[in-house]
Amino acid sequence: MSAPLNVTVWNEFRHERKNPAVAAIYPTGIHGAIAGFLAPDAGLRVRTATLDEPEHGLPAAVVAETDVLVWWGHTAHAEVADAVVERVRRRVLEGMGLIVLHSGHYSKIFKALMGTTCSLRWRESGDRERVWTVAPSHPIARGVGESFAIPVEEMYGEPFGIPEPEELVFVSWFSGGEVFRSGCAWRRGHGRVFYFQPGHETYPIYHQPEVQRVIANAVRWAAPTVRIPDNCPNPPPPEPPV
Amino acid sequence: MSAPLNVTVWNEFRHERKNPAVAAIYPTGIHGAIAGFLAPDAGLRVRTATLDEPEHGLPAAVVAETDVLVWWGHTAHAEVADAVVERVRRRVLEGMGLIVLHSGHYSKIFKALMGTTCSLRWRESGDRERVWTVAPSHPIARGVGESFAIPVEEMYGEPFGIPEPEELVFVSWFSGGEVFRSGCAWRRGHGRVFYFQPGHETYPIYHQPEVQRVIANAVRWAAPTVRIPDNCPNPPPPEPPV
Amino acid sequence: MSAPLNVTVWNEFRHERKNPAVAAIYPTGIHGAIAGFLAPDAGLRVRTATLDEPEHGLPAAVVAETDVLVWWGHTAHAEVADAVVERVRRRVLEGMGLIVLHSGHYSKIFKALMGTTCSLRWRESGDRERVWTVAPSHPIARGVGESFAIPVEEMYGEPFGIPEPEELVFVSWFSGGEVFRSGCAWRRGHGRVFYFQPGHETYPIYHQPEVQRVIANAVRWAAPTVRIPDNCPNPPPPEPPV
Amino acid sequence: MSAPLNVTVWNEFRHERKNPAVAAIYPTGIHGAIAGFLAPDAGLRVRTATLDEPEHGLPAAVVAETDVLVWWGHTAHAEVADAVVERVRRRVLEGMGLIVLHSGHYSKIFKALMGTTCSLRWRESGDRERVWTVAPSHPIARGVGESFAIPVEEMYGEPFGIPEPEELVFVSWFSGGEVFRSGCAWRRGHGRVFYFQPGHETYPIYHQPEVQRVIANAVRWAAPTVRIPDNCPNPPPPEPPV
Repeated sequence: MSAPLNVTVWNEFRHERKNPAVAAIYPTGIHGAIAGFLAPDAGLRVRTATLDEPEHGLPAAVVAETDVLVWWGHTAHAEVADAVVERVRRRVLEGMGLIVLHSGHYSKIFKALMGTTCSLRWRESGDRERVWTVAPSHPIARGVGESFAIPVEEMYGEPFGIPEPEELVFVSWFSGGEVFRSGCAWRRGHGRVFYFQPGHETYPIYHQPEVQRVIANAVRWAAPTVRIPDNCPNPPPPEPPV
Repeated sequence: MSAPLNVTVWNEFRHERKNPAVAAIYPTGIHGAIAGFLAPDAGLRVRTATLDEPEHGLPAAVVAETDVLVWWGHTAHAEVADAVVERVRRRVLEGMGLIVLHSGHYSKIFKALMGTTCSLRWRESGDRERVWTVAPSHPIARGVGESFAIPVEEMYGEPFGIPEPEELVFVSWFSGGEVFRSGCAWRRGHGRVFYFQPGHETYPIYHQPEVQRVIANAVRWAAPTVRIPDNCPNPPPPEPPV
Repeated sequence: MSAPLNVTVWNEFRHERKNPAVAAIYPTGIHGAIAGFLAPDAGLRVRTATLDEPEHGLPAAVVAETDVLVWWGHTAHAEVADAVVERVRRRVLEGMGLIVLHSGHYSKIFKALMGTTCSLRWRESGDRERVWTVAPSHPIARGVGESFAIPVEEMYGEPFGIPEPEELVFVSWFSGGEVFRSGCAWRRGHGRVFYFQPGHETYPIYHQPEVQRVIANAVRWAAPTVRIPDNCPNPPPPEPPV
Repeated sequence: MSAPLNVTVWNEFRHERKNPAVAAIYPTGIHGAIAGFLAPDAGLRVRTATLDEPEHGLPAAVVAETDVLVWWGHTAHAEVADAVVERVRRRVLEGMGLIVLHSGHYSKIFKALMGTTCSLRWRESGDRERVWTVAPSHPIARGVGESFAIPVEEMYGEPFGIPEPEELVFVSWFSGGEVFRSGCAWRRGHGRVFYFQPGHETYPIYHQPEVQRVIANAVRWAAPTVRIPDNCPNPPPPEPPV
């Protein structure tokens, strides 16, 4: 039996407290919804953290013991303290997994790890989305099927300002005519990063089984295999000099 | 002034001779249409070759002096002689560029260079296609714009059985609900390979300016920088033994 | 408890029967040595297959039930029947893992999956090799350490005629002055392919614990997650036409 | 005739002013040496910039008109103002090329674009280095040959904390037993980034023809094809809603 995986679900948690329509969909917050569907997996030990907690709920001890961090943010990316972003970034590079959801494409942590703009095309016009599995044998696609529809979603379209994904898992179709690389995986340092596009706050997308399945798969896929702190060693030669 | 680039446009040239509807769209053949829009570029020396010529129009001398080969085939992939396929493959690995169009995804040469099934989802239902530029700064996308529509096209959809593209340039949307990685680039040996999806024989797609622009850009992008025959050298050590 | 993984270790098995020096190092053949160090893992069900058995020990039933195939060949690549190569290639594309060792770089199956020359620089001069872990968090590097030495090995050097590895795990140093990408990983279709350079027949390299560790890790890493036969579907549109 | 390329060679320029031994090797500074060997190319318009100039010689107007920026820094990375780093980063993402040399691996700009630690193994022990061309057909390797030696160099060894290079062009061998991915290329946004390891300040490495050739090739390769400012558009649907 291996030890359970420590998963921390982070949410900005502002929409839910200001907008009753959002609160109606996510009464315990988006973090509560995500933690809720992950919780039944006995191999996971799930906690949540939110922006307005001290240190955004991510003090050094929590980050240190987190194996996989799930991130949802939207209106308050700028309020996330740079020191916390740097702490999370370092931890990813040491081996922690990071799952970035939807509007988290513009979070400081995602932009810091990608190095690019992370900009995209968008429209809140109630488009229908169809998510296609491009890599059916990728662990994150397990059990997801060839494609699935999200009845109403914010449109995110190309070009998406990211480095070329190392593994492109999902590509989405929107009824207004756009496409989007909606499931993208990278290794960064010793950690794994997965970006997954579905999940606007005003739609019940995190209650949809296929979306839950992808997130649960991604958490498992991103589980660390090592913990290697950054170092820049200055060792003697391993071979006798020529 | 650099020497002109030798471009050979290869076409199966069967549909045009059997089906008057195809002949009406491409009276000089698909190869004729492609050679026709490339010809005005003074930097290119364009010739054509077709399946039913001796050695499919690709004898050793032609392949040896070709810098970039454009390939269109559909119903007669199996009739292309293995020896010619191997000759072309070797030449690509030495540095020749290869542009594979539409149903060429199932050509022997493309499958041999990719190593995978190259299978895809398809449907002849007159879908509307919208081609999105995912990599606006890629040389193949120069002047193409954010997206363009193809009014009627055969649907090609994911999953597409290819190795992860090294550079994903275009992704397409189809009105029936599918998406497709419609512009994909790889280096193979010392040559460059570009697959471009548009171009069914029963639609006038190679008369469309955006499609012509992409193919012309791809020919330039795939121009060889070297010619390095395969070798497996057995040299003495460059450094004094330890 | 998950079902054990079916591992087939394939060996050309010619050197050992012709050359007493090789037989002294590998009395049960290279396949016997590899199967021997994998066997203690209760999660693996290991069998062997060799060139001179009927269908090279790889009839359809064996290939169908193999999860991971390990491949060692050298002098008789040309004797491997094309039909068997094609059978193995199809199975990899469906999801089977393939571990190609040392001189297997020139096997038909590796060349067919890569699409390139797979040529390299080489020298039998008793070089010392040092294998460096470039990706310490890759599952194949687990427990291997920063680097390890192979006291005497055939030199394999760059350029190596392969597609850019998707994950470069090891790079080797040779005392004569060369370097080599000695551990390279790719996904091909639904299968995973790993090439690992160490292992000349006249040196006891497969008795070295670090080499055994890498091969055992690679077998685990290459375990299939799916089995998806090739198909090229022609489905109706998933979305109502626009 | 295309317009000349605007190249800015940036140097920290501290070692040369403090250490007479460095000044003896590079009397006009490392920037002066690099600008000097690039200058004869009539297609380049070369200027230099250094840390202690106002805004480090990189005011907005200079960055805006620079096509390719070459970067050398070592002891004073921390003194480079964050605002200037961000200005350069934005410009790279818009299309400017960036060539990062040697100890620049730890510069703020390289780390910001990579998102990773950029740490490595190192030793100042006068190792001999041999640089191997892994991708002989890459434009940056043009005319460089199979390998070349640098008689005395600081050792840089793996693991190198970078994202997987999109194109690995050079790998180096060091006499003490290490290897290093010494020439690595990435696209970031619309710009191209190349890291090249040779060039310690106390060795006359930038006077060596092969090294000059690589840097000149890299400048040409990194020339922008576009200039696309960051944007995150909110357009109407291109297709009529379903």
